[in-house]
Amino acid sequence: MRSVSLDTITEVVTKTVEGAGDARLKEILSVLVRHLHQIVEEARLTHQEWEYAVNFLWRAGQISDDSRQEFILLSDVLGVSSTVDLVNSANNASESSVLGPFYVTDPPGLPVGGDMIQGQPGQPVLVEGVIRAPDGTPLPGAVLDIWQNADNGLYDVQEADRDGYNLRCRMITDDRGAYRFTTVRAKPYTVPDDGPVGDLLRATGRHPWRPAHIHFRISKDGYRELITELFDSEDRYVDEDAVFGVRESLVADYTLTNDADEAARHGLPTPYLKVVHDFMLAPKG
Amino acid sequence: MRSVSLDTITEVVTKTVEGAGDARLKEILSVLVRHLHQIVEEARLTHQEWEYAVNFLWRAGQISDDSRQEFILLSDVLGVSSTVDLVNSANNASESSVLGPFYVTDPPGLPVGGDMIQGQPGQPVLVEGVIRAPDGTPLPGAVLDIWQNADNGLYDVQEADRDGYNLRCRMITDDRGAYRFTTVRAKPYTVPDDGPVGDLLRATGRHPWRPAHIHFRISKDGYRELITELFDSEDRYVDEDAVFGVRESLVADYTLTNDADEAARHGLPTPYLKVVHDFMLAPKG
Repeated sequence: MRSVSLDTITEVVTKTVEGAGDARLKEILSVLVRHLHQIVEEARLTHQEWEYAVNFLWRAGQISDDSRQEFILLSDVLGVSSTVDLVNSANNASESSVLGPFYVTDPPGLPVGGDMIQGQPGQPVLVEGVIRAPDGTPLPGAVLDIWQNADNGLYDVQEADRDGYNLRCRMITDDRGAYRFTTVRAKPYTVPDDGPVGDLLRATGRHPWRPAHIHFRISKDGYRELITELFDSEDRYVDEDAVFGVRESLVADYTLTNDADEAARHGLPTPYLKVVHDFMLAPKG
Repeated sequence: MRSVSLDTITEVVTKTVEGAGDARLKEILSVLVRHLHQIVEEARLTHQEWEYAVNFLWRAGQISDDSRQEFILLSDVLGVSSTVDLVNSANNASESSVLGPFYVTDPPGLPVGGDMIQGQPGQPVLVEGVIRAPDGTPLPGAVLDIWQNADNGLYDVQEADRDGYNLRCRMITDDRGAYRFTTVRAKPYTVPDDGPVGDLLRATGRHPWRPAHIHFRISKDGYRELITELFDSEDRYVDEDAVFGVRESLVADYTLTNDADEAARHGLPTPYLKVVHDFMLAPKG
């Protein structure tokens, strides 16, 4: 190419990525270049607007560091992260949802029926269910990483003065494929909105709230890993998640329950809240 | 929205930007969201690839600072900056091209016919032309900011130990609309390739070279500002500019010239190189 015009530039740039050694990189870049050019052409982006956009990205870079990733947040609030989830959801499994920034690898083990409340404030909840194959067969030995925030709205990793884990565990389903734990009701919370993504939310009249949820990351040999969230049907933000993570099938009822025997077995007061939710894993391949 | 699916997520996210106070912001975000979602869907982007992409942006942010803007570079090498130029080019004016990162506001004045060589090494060149309206009328009093790199490939602002301007001036066209200056022949150079954008170039087998060029930023009351570049037809990279800035109409010949009178008038040795190029400005509105 010597000269480019609006008619040829996309083809010219696409040709330059054809040298990519990796065929998949070539494929992704071709799609990316085509759509980036279309954005500019369809929006008739001015130089000033382009300057604003690259400066926005620069600002997102400046506020990011080892413990902050403003570009994930940007992807989240534009629904890009959720689109990635939806594209990769198996249609014979439970729906997936965003991993979020608060996942920690290798959380402490907790036996089925274990207690995550550990005396802390909040509404007591018993959460239980079965991990199943698509045909309904229970899956013993499935590994669940479970994490959520506390009654103050914070995840353990957000509390600077906390030493050790809270409301975070790894559980292995029993011989009936069941998981079960006591916890406190999770709380809605805001995504960090003190950076450029917060500016974007304000400029579009959006709030930064996510509805209360419990995270699950579920794996078992021979099955596709499931990363998902379980939402609280009574949460005021369940219909307007700032990061578009809610799926109807992942909204669970917190049912007021008065089973004295069950309460005694789990050291719960009566009445207590109960959530029952099964998850389905898709076989690999 | 409570639930989103692949069929609804773009509409759902687009609805959330409808609260934008600024109608133009709303328009741009709608176009942006639609294409970002299409990129994910068409490429069937995996979670791992998405992670690579947000990490790439994070790295671009970490290498950026007050004197480095990796996102402009990314926009440049993907042809996005040139697409912005092309979308905004007036069709009754000379073609525009990228501003680049080395522009400095308020450069030192130089009269028509002035010398920018100032004794420095390089091939001596006389550059001249006329600034015109679309009907050919010369435009006296047009303001040209002119800048280029030196024989060592560097712009003055890239030389840490340099105090003061070099190969950079502001010239006002004379009563015949003419500009004219002596300079040294500009050199090809590489865009910074020690960051993630450099990784991208290498992964796609691309080089980081830009063909030699002289920058012009031309303005006159009542006319649209023209930001453009004049390329050297003999440069080895003129057909493969890393940032896609070349337009056929902006490629000029450096003609070996032996006019003893002209050489004497400008203090040039004979033979010298001569470039003649007129620029056309489009009226405003």
